[in-house]
Amino acid sequence: MKILKRIYRENLSLATDLYQLTMAQGYWKAGHEKQEAVFHLFFRKNPFNGGYAIACGLAYLVDYLNEFRFEEDDLDYLAQLTGNDGRRLFETEFLNYLGRLQFCCDVDAMPEGSVVFPQEPLVRVSGPIIQAQLLETPLLNIVNFQTLIATKASRICHAAGGDPVLEFGLRRAQGMDGALAASWAAYVGGCAATSNVLAGKLFGIPVKGTHAHSWVMSFASEEEAFQKYAEAMPNNAVFLVDTYDTLEGVRRAVKAGQWLREHGHKLAGIRLDSGDLAYLSVEARKILDEAGFKDAFIVASNDLDEVIIQSLKDQGAAISVWGVGTKLVTGHDQAALGGVYKLAMIRNPGQAWQHTIKLSEQGIKISTPGIQQVRRFRNEREFIGDMIYDLELGLNRSTIVDPNDPMRRKNMPAG
Amino acid sequence: MKILKRIYRENLSLATDLYQLTMAQGYWKAGHEKQEAVFHLFFRKNPFNGGYAIACGLAYLVDYLNEFRFEEDDLDYLAQLTGNDGRRLFETEFLNYLGRLQFCCDVDAMPEGSVVFPQEPLVRVSGPIIQAQLLETPLLNIVNFQTLIATKASRICHAAGGDPVLEFGLRRAQGMDGALAASWAAYVGGCAATSNVLAGKLFGIPVKGTHAHSWVMSFASEEEAFQKYAEAMPNNAVFLVDTYDTLEGVRRAVKAGQWLREHGHKLAGIRLDSGDLAYLSVEARKILDEAGFKDAFIVASNDLDEVIIQSLKDQGAAISVWGVGTKLVTGHDQAALGGVYKLAMIRNPGQAWQHTIKLSEQGIKISTPGIQQVRRFRNEREFIGDMIYDLELGLNRSTIVDPNDPMRRKNMPAG
Repeated sequence: MKILKRIYRENLSLATDLYQLTMAQGYWKAGHEKQEAVFHLFFRKNPFNGGYAIACGLAYLVDYLNEFRFEEDDLDYLAQLTGNDGRRLFETEFLNYLGRLQFCCDVDAMPEGSVVFPQEPLVRVSGPIIQAQLLETPLLNIVNFQTLIATKASRICHAAGGDPVLEFGLRRAQGMDGALAASWAAYVGGCAATSNVLAGKLFGIPVKGTHAHSWVMSFASEEEAFQKYAEAMPNNAVFLVDTYDTLEGVRRAVKAGQWLREHGHKLAGIRLDSGDLAYLSVEARKILDEAGFKDAFIVASNDLDEVIIQSLKDQGAAISVWGVGTKLVTGHDQAALGGVYKLAMIRNPGQAWQHTIKLSEQGIKISTPGIQQVRRFRNEREFIGDMIYDLELGLNRSTIVDPNDPMRRKNMPAG
Repeated sequence: MKILKRIYRENLSLATDLYQLTMAQGYWKAGHEKQEAVFHLFFRKNPFNGGYAIACGLAYLVDYLNEFRFEEDDLDYLAQLTGNDGRRLFETEFLNYLGRLQFCCDVDAMPEGSVVFPQEPLVRVSGPIIQAQLLETPLLNIVNFQTLIATKASRICHAAGGDPVLEFGLRRAQGMDGALAASWAAYVGGCAATSNVLAGKLFGIPVKGTHAHSWVMSFASEEEAFQKYAEAMPNNAVFLVDTYDTLEGVRRAVKAGQWLREHGHKLAGIRLDSGDLAYLSVEARKILDEAGFKDAFIVASNDLDEVIIQSLKDQGAAISVWGVGTKLVTGHDQAALGGVYKLAMIRNPGQAWQHTIKLSEQGIKISTPGIQQVRRFRNEREFIGDMIYDLELGLNRSTIVDPNDPMRRKNMPAG
């Protein structure tokens, strides 16, 4: 998609932790640049205390890898960095080596939008250790955030039960790309549209929006504000009704709707942005229906997330479109997915793969060696389980064991 | 600083909510494009249940305003958007008007890094209503996030009590700009350095980093790994000691430190990344001191924030440098600052300013009219209070009233 190339002016190869580069020089000086490694990107716990995650970030990732190289001015910057003796951190010869680097790792990844679970490799990188190591930070940045937001979007869309969910998060998102990447991930996770016009332009996501409270406040009356809006945008008429008194606002929207109807247009809907959304939506629905606007939808917004949407549904709210912002695009109750990128195998030129492991006093932090692959099993009706296995050992067992609780086991059907 | 121009290829004028543009067409069609408005950007509650915030985002903001214009391909994209009748959302004549728009609002803002409080205008925009309205979304995006992170950094640095705090958050940040903008804001908030090399290059922030667990795992032994690292990067030797057994790791770091010393270099420090940091740091300190490495510092990392740092300090941890990642760059316990941008005054050509107000059933959501300014009072020793006042009414009162609790009042000294 060339997304990154359209968004960013800078080549992003320096968007990495300094230690990736100091290690790279270390491998190079130790004569290990021919050593090959296998790394897996995975997370240890489902986000939001939930039961699954939605893998996302592959589109950005492919772009990143296609553009992976160090430019002249990147190397110039690195040449200026000094260590604790005031001398250069990076040797000229190493920087020349970096400048010549051509990306040649094998990268396997879960398809964008896949349902994934803890410990499963979302991305597997295998190739020269220096390159595979350099990718750690940008890969984690891209996949951690987008997987987090795609998962949040999926949870919110699930609570909305098929109603369209609109992503409105730009103003509270974590920076410009926090917003753009979130719009993309929210769309992958099931959202119908975004308010972010640049995301619409870059990703082709439908964009939605009508007017704010300030529109109403800038006119002498709400009635005049709605009428002027109807005249200006007759094919996009969703009135925000809660600037002063919500149900009065609905009645004024009905009046503007009658004008629209008389002029061959339609009242698309109204939006509620504050107050008791369950009560107000039911009352608003009555007013709209009685005036013959049964097709006009009611959009709700105001700090919504999957829990509040579920609660509004349970209360019988007459809401048919959900505008979700801050709590979607930031993750809110969980602001980061704790994905990690761990070395699992290493190979010296001409030798066999060797397993590597990271030990820890915390069981969950012990890494799993092997070249890992996932097989998803299903019966006639549904998916029944995923098996993570070692490609070198092959798929010759039928029992899967929960990596977080070895007592939990399940037999998979053959074939 | 031309930050945005260096980071982004796209002009960011479309990084806005669609409704800003539909309202713009509305104002234009209603003949209100000569109307002037005053908007204030403020927040209603200190982040992190704290007592203050650190204003940040001005550097990005100035760049944004300098580049504010709609390009040909932005207008082409807008021309393709359709309403619910399948016809165009934006008229050609309006798009031509947008293309000719030259930014001419007055923008006043709190200096980058100022201590600020709820209800105070961080940014005040006054000028043609269409332009002032179009700025709402990008201004909020920039200022909300950077103010959040600068505040978090300030809280963390305060807990660290003067010890250097290093920002290590790139891999879990919310996208590339979530990371870059966070590195900048963390630096404004008091951090000493970042691991993000691109942030170093773009902003001139010091960058830090040495090696990861994977470095140790890729060698046959930890001893060999440290020795090879010492040989490769003798002027940047901070050893990560917890890959296998932490205190054994410290002893091996000492051994590599002795080699460094014999060769005219120094052991800069060690890093602890897991386990009981209070206990391990005290034991590590003893080992280092006994071996004559009293100058070698101990860096700690592992999901730190201001609460954990304070607790480690209280436990007497022998940590002198703090590496803070995820919980700093995402805000963690609060992932967004709820800053808003509210219309306060409106003026028709040739007339006086009129006050505008947004009502709400929630008291905190009622907006404050007036052209707002802040005066900070101090006595000989310290700041004693901020007064928010209306520029048109002037600074002729001596009592300040807490906007969130009118019972709280304080008299300010004259002058």
